[in-house]
Amino acid sequence: MRATVMYAAGDVRIENVPDPRIEEPTDAIIRVVRASICGSDLWPYGSLEPQEIGRPMGHEAIGVVEDVGAEVRDIKPGDVVVMPFAFSDGTCAFCHEGLQTACVHGGFFDGYGTSAAQAEAVRVPYADGTLYPVPAGEDDALLPSLLTLSDVMGTGQHAAVVAKVAPGKKVAVVGDGAVGLCGVIAAKRLGAEQIVILGRHPDRIALAREFGATGVVSERGEEAIERVKELTGYGAHSVLECVGTEDAMRTAVEIARPGGAVGRVGVPHYEAIPAAEPAFYCNITIGGGPAPARAYIDDLLPDVLDGRIEPGRIFDRVVALDEVPDGYRAMHEREALKVMVNPS
Amino acid sequence: MRATVMYAAGDVRIENVPDPRIEEPTDAIIRVVRASICGSDLWPYGSLEPQEIGRPMGHEAIGVVEDVGAEVRDIKPGDVVVMPFAFSDGTCAFCHEGLQTACVHGGFFDGYGTSAAQAEAVRVPYADGTLYPVPAGEDDALLPSLLTLSDVMGTGQHAAVVAKVAPGKKVAVVGDGAVGLCGVIAAKRLGAEQIVILGRHPDRIALAREFGATGVVSERGEEAIERVKELTGYGAHSVLECVGTEDAMRTAVEIARPGGAVGRVGVPHYEAIPAAEPAFYCNITIGGGPAPARAYIDDLLPDVLDGRIEPGRIFDRVVALDEVPDGYRAMHEREALKVMVNPS
Repeated sequence: MRATVMYAAGDVRIENVPDPRIEEPTDAIIRVVRASICGSDLWPYGSLEPQEIGRPMGHEAIGVVEDVGAEVRDIKPGDVVVMPFAFSDGTCAFCHEGLQTACVHGGFFDGYGTSAAQAEAVRVPYADGTLYPVPAGEDDALLPSLLTLSDVMGTGQHAAVVAKVAPGKKVAVVGDGAVGLCGVIAAKRLGAEQIVILGRHPDRIALAREFGATGVVSERGEEAIERVKELTGYGAHSVLECVGTEDAMRTAVEIARPGGAVGRVGVPHYEAIPAAEPAFYCNITIGGGPAPARAYIDDLLPDVLDGRIEPGRIFDRVVALDEVPDGYRAMHEREALKVMVNPS
Repeated sequence: MRATVMYAAGDVRIENVPDPRIEEPTDAIIRVVRASICGSDLWPYGSLEPQEIGRPMGHEAIGVVEDVGAEVRDIKPGDVVVMPFAFSDGTCAFCHEGLQTACVHGGFFDGYGTSAAQAEAVRVPYADGTLYPVPAGEDDALLPSLLTLSDVMGTGQHAAVVAKVAPGKKVAVVGDGAVGLCGVIAAKRLGAEQIVILGRHPDRIALAREFGATGVVSERGEEAIERVKELTGYGAHSVLECVGTEDAMRTAVEIARPGGAVGRVGVPHYEAIPAAEPAFYCNITIGGGPAPARAYIDDLLPDVLDGRIEPGRIFDRVVALDEVPDGYRAMHEREALKVMVNPS
């Protein structure tokens, strides 16, 4: 089959690779109907050291089950399924607690020993614990929104949940990328009274407003902090950190209201969380991490099916597999917000 | 009156100072019945640069109201009151939310522009919002435990609440000082299934066991982390960080179970919170700060009055005012765990 393989920063290739096959009796093979490029794929795209053995790419997909191992009970060939970005056994203590990204047998579709999703097919470990069947056809208009449940919408939701968004709360979203925009959707859905987005791309801000953002802060640094405080009074009850840089994290802490919470979902590119003292003296809570996207599908799916939320609108480009390298380039250069891959 | 004044690291003096008097119509003057030396007083005792004008010391007290300003409505002369370590107006948004340590008109009894509690009397701003009357006499056997409600027991409680201690949870307490021991009391009271204390002072550990600790880890660093994981399985659901050093904070994060929470109440002597990446990949939540001791009295007072908790047992030395400098020395040298001051 054809698959996306990264060899170095900026070097993404489409190659013929062996078809994935059932290796464990709990595996399933899915044919990829739609995949997508994640903001986190851009980190290696910007920095990967040259590799002799390339890294298969992609961890967000919706697909059709083609084959299942002998011990797979619930997932059936022909099911249309969301593939969350982490696989999980569905039976351990963490899976039962809804934290599938800490599953004791789980892991990420990171291409290191796993197959990956920007391809014609994927091998999915622990199919019953990982895959989530959805009532949709292969050419459903809802596919883009359903695809976001594999990662980006669940990640925005996680930021909002960890930041304790609730009715009446004032919310700030740091970052106007795809995760930030999904954070706006999540905050609106959870009843936020006010949603301020920190970003400066006009088209993304326009979409954020359609998703429910009530205010925009395009300043940086100290000015951004002051501006958020002007808009919210004492700061935001809930801050969604959707970038992952040290500066973004510092801003997130400093715009939180005393007693507030920061939900961080940007993959951290810092070793220590800045602003330890302001966070302490203001009793700010800082949480977050890889979203248990699998757990959030229960909550989010009905809203997607009913059209109450439309996270699929973040996709502003669709590419065939051969065009995936250009999709990376376009996202890297901020020419595209989020790229969907149609391998068929 | 006589009061405790610090001029430099190791230089604590008892001096005659002007009697405090009503300055604002919302003030009260309390005669101090018991005060105490706080672990946080030991930071300046170890490091204060020499000062020309000394710093009045003490922020934990129980006293009798002697005088009130014209606008004080609820607090009456003769009331026996707990004086929490922060004053608060009782009317702002944060006070209503129970976060009095973020009161918009509030502050700490830190001796900078306030009077302080290791003295014969204290001026208390916002008496109605700050002071908490308790049904006790001046020579009550419960005075030591009631005194802890001004800070140390409320601080242990805050660590436990922020760390989400609840029935069935496995808890780790980093630090066997007075706050850590109160953290053990709080964790036990909130229903923890297992309470592991990290410390290495035999007398303190013995008291921790009486308070409800089920296990002790006296190793340091990596060995401590391994040992906590052996005892708890995947780590502690709830970690109470009661020290305030970077090492203690790192340990706290690394002994938390995926999805767990760290409540930090040790005044941070670090600029950034270490272990940002492990905390992220394990979805650890980190919160805490200056405890809203005033808010916790509602919950804790009945248990103190009924003898269900005995936090006053942390006091292992009582001194007169003249002996306060030696009390500092004794706590600094770990000869005493926690010193109570009887100024009468």
